[in-house]
Amino acid sequence: VIKVVVAGAAGRMGQTVVDAVSHADDMTLVAGVDPALGSGVEEALGDAEVLVDFTQPGAVLANVAAAIEAGVHSVIGTTGFDMAELERMCQGAAVNVLVAPNFAIGAVLMMRFAADAARHMPKAEIIELHHDTKLDAPSGTAIRTAALMADASGNAPPPIHSVRLPGLVANQEVILGELGQTLTIRHDTTSREAFMPGVLLAARRVGALERSPTVGLEHLL
Amino acid sequence: VIKVVVAGAAGRMGQTVVDAVSHADDMTLVAGVDPALGSGVEEALGDAEVLVDFTQPGAVLANVAAAIEAGVHSVIGTTGFDMAELERMCQGAAVNVLVAPNFAIGAVLMMRFAADAARHMPKAEIIELHHDTKLDAPSGTAIRTAALMADASGNAPPPIHSVRLPGLVANQEVILGELGQTLTIRHDTTSREAFMPGVLLAARRVGALERSPTVGLEHLL
Amino acid sequence: VIKVVVAGAAGRMGQTVVDAVSHADDMTLVAGVDPALGSGVEEALGDAEVLVDFTQPGAVLANVAAAIEAGVHSVIGTTGFDMAELERMCQGAAVNVLVAPNFAIGAVLMMRFAADAARHMPKAEIIELHHDTKLDAPSGTAIRTAALMADASGNAPPPIHSVRLPGLVANQEVILGELGQTLTIRHDTTSREAFMPGVLLAARRVGALERSPTVGLEHLL
Amino acid sequence: VIKVVVAGAAGRMGQTVVDAVSHADDMTLVAGVDPALGSGVEEALGDAEVLVDFTQPGAVLANVAAAIEAGVHSVIGTTGFDMAELERMCQGAAVNVLVAPNFAIGAVLMMRFAADAARHMPKAEIIELHHDTKLDAPSGTAIRTAALMADASGNAPPPIHSVRLPGLVANQEVILGELGQTLTIRHDTTSREAFMPGVLLAARRVGALERSPTVGLEHLL
Repeated sequence: VIKVVVAGAAGRMGQTVVDAVSHADDMTLVAGVDPALGSGVEEALGDAEVLVDFTQPGAVLANVAAAIEAGVHSVIGTTGFDMAELERMCQGAAVNVLVAPNFAIGAVLMMRFAADAARHMPKAEIIELHHDTKLDAPSGTAIRTAALMADASGNAPPPIHSVRLPGLVANQEVILGELGQTLTIRHDTTSREAFMPGVLLAARRVGALERSPTVGLEHLL
Repeated sequence: VIKVVVAGAAGRMGQTVVDAVSHADDMTLVAGVDPALGSGVEEALGDAEVLVDFTQPGAVLANVAAAIEAGVHSVIGTTGFDMAELERMCQGAAVNVLVAPNFAIGAVLMMRFAADAARHMPKAEIIELHHDTKLDAPSGTAIRTAALMADASGNAPPPIHSVRLPGLVANQEVILGELGQTLTIRHDTTSREAFMPGVLLAARRVGALERSPTVGLEHLL
Repeated sequence: VIKVVVAGAAGRMGQTVVDAVSHADDMTLVAGVDPALGSGVEEALGDAEVLVDFTQPGAVLANVAAAIEAGVHSVIGTTGFDMAELERMCQGAAVNVLVAPNFAIGAVLMMRFAADAARHMPKAEIIELHHDTKLDAPSGTAIRTAALMADASGNAPPPIHSVRLPGLVANQEVILGELGQTLTIRHDTTSREAFMPGVLLAARRVGALERSPTVGLEHLL
Repeated sequence: VIKVVVAGAAGRMGQTVVDAVSHADDMTLVAGVDPALGSGVEEALGDAEVLVDFTQPGAVLANVAAAIEAGVHSVIGTTGFDMAELERMCQGAAVNVLVAPNFAIGAVLMMRFAADAARHMPKAEIIELHHDTKLDAPSGTAIRTAALMADASGNAPPPIHSVRLPGLVANQEVILGELGQTLTIRHDTTSREAFMPGVLLAARRVGALERSPTVGLEHLL
């Protein structure tokens, strides 16, 4: 049984993770913490094994630092923070960190297909569409998709357009264009439950990673 | 029989208009002119009745000035020029000018529906997608749609995203968002023939307009 | 304060309605009933004023019959039942019935725009996409959209395609095609909350309808 | 220089192929034949090396039989014919046949991604949308996509919906659904030029195939 602390437990993603961990046969929820609940990460880490963090760009690195200090692995779903700083923190650490901008299997497939397609159709643009309470833009998924496409094709990363509207959950469209044709790869999230199989998989596997930080759920599939 | 001069006759839209005018029973093509063809508007206006202009932002106003001078009505499909200057030119002119950012019936309906929907769903964004050789961004259709939505709703015009890729012709999507739902109105052009019924209608009716310049094909429907 | 009974209270739509009625300042929830909860409509109607029914094709007409018998107005969100039978039941009844295949403002706008567009672009097809636990196909919204388009255009109703997949909530796309262009009007529901403003509006207004049954939320807007 | 005969040269695809072959440095157009042009395949095969066939389901097999008889390789873009019969014809033939339901690189990628995704997201449906003069339904591309997805996943082929409207060229959308999410892979063709690089590639490579008939352009990429 894996002992899990969830940071950001008062947020919508955090609440969904708390539910999912509570219902997983092979996990125990040690604590769901959140400043809004009057609780912090450090006090909760006691005998936890994994921290799952769905907080905010300004909070996540301090949480991970506390986890490393306490010998606890981290699974990070927060986006928009300083990645270079995280890389420094992970050097020489005794525990692992997995960062994923998106834990939905469909989003992981979208990123893989977009990168593959970019090799054959070099011109592309990305449109990401999210609910109007999302704090960061462009989304972490869009930034990661663009980077993967640039790596695969050897071209500059494609432009990203960010749409913010009520009624949207989380959607992304990659459009590739070529003489007389376009190829569109689109992922739509209609419920946060879409992310839970990926989050639980990450919590199970983070301890066995060979590289830390590992970026992207695709390394576990 | 209406005598028509087409400016921009070497461009793709201009060529399609030349074909359409040539095949219309109630019209005669006086001339298709274009700097690329070594011919100019002024020389051609002789006994024409209507000038149809699909040129470029830097050329259109001089063409219309020549048409007004020659007593010839103008139908303008060019976008991206200084509208205030055109308004000044039309004051006291003896002939009429019709400007339309888009002559496709589906695009006219899209603009009307977007404006109507904006009254009930105030949050919206516009995505316009065009071939990568289009000179101006945002498109004239997108700018006009945003203005119509702002007029109808009393809100600020919605943001516009411009996507430019090979393989696209001319497409626009208006997304309106509300708690738990989105409404999307999209127009896709797959061939320049889509614009011809509207261009011919404009050439037939421009002489009878009560206001000049009139902006938008919807005033003729 | 309007006294409301909700039938189908154990279903997902019914639960959402129970919540919305409970939180509405001008309404009181008399009862939420459901065979799955061991409770029936008849016993609950006592001093209710409005029945809101989100049940199943085989149950709704008996519920409405009980409501008419008890002098209670009905708001029906259930689809797929025998409409002619409902019309017969409403003849001479002392109370009113409102039926709407869709209570979302965006869906009502989609239907209105589709009917308007069908007058100008006669060729069309409808694609409706729902979660794979939806019982009826085509959806009531699609059938109603097709009927409104046929009425407006004088043509046969457009074909309807029904897609059923997990991960979808409720979406509909109307595609109209013309030489060189298509116009697409799409409504996407991401949460059942989208329907609540329309359901509450219907509960407030059903008593004042001039015609019973009235079909379509648009008559209240 | 490869000597090519194009069958179906009076059709829209055939005309585009005639143009493309004529402009290819490494090919010569021996003849473009078509019943509408008063010419047949057999007479034209003389010293040709490759037959490219974009005709109709009722004509293609006789054309290929003539090509085999004359020692000419065949590239077939026609769909909707009896595949089993073609397999029989190819047994023991001295020349090769390549059949592809779609020669656009984007369509080939769509099929590959759909098959790959079907392994991870087993529930799917296909919507194919074409101009209203297309003779067969479902499209060959849709049938092939469904077969590839079934092969990859071990599940039944997904349902196919066929939309036929003016204003469409050739589009296909594969939607895969999973708890809380959907993944959509869409290919849009806006001009027949999209197919030409694939058709020319096939004409260059058909002679070197190890298996005949080979089905799908992906075997050449």
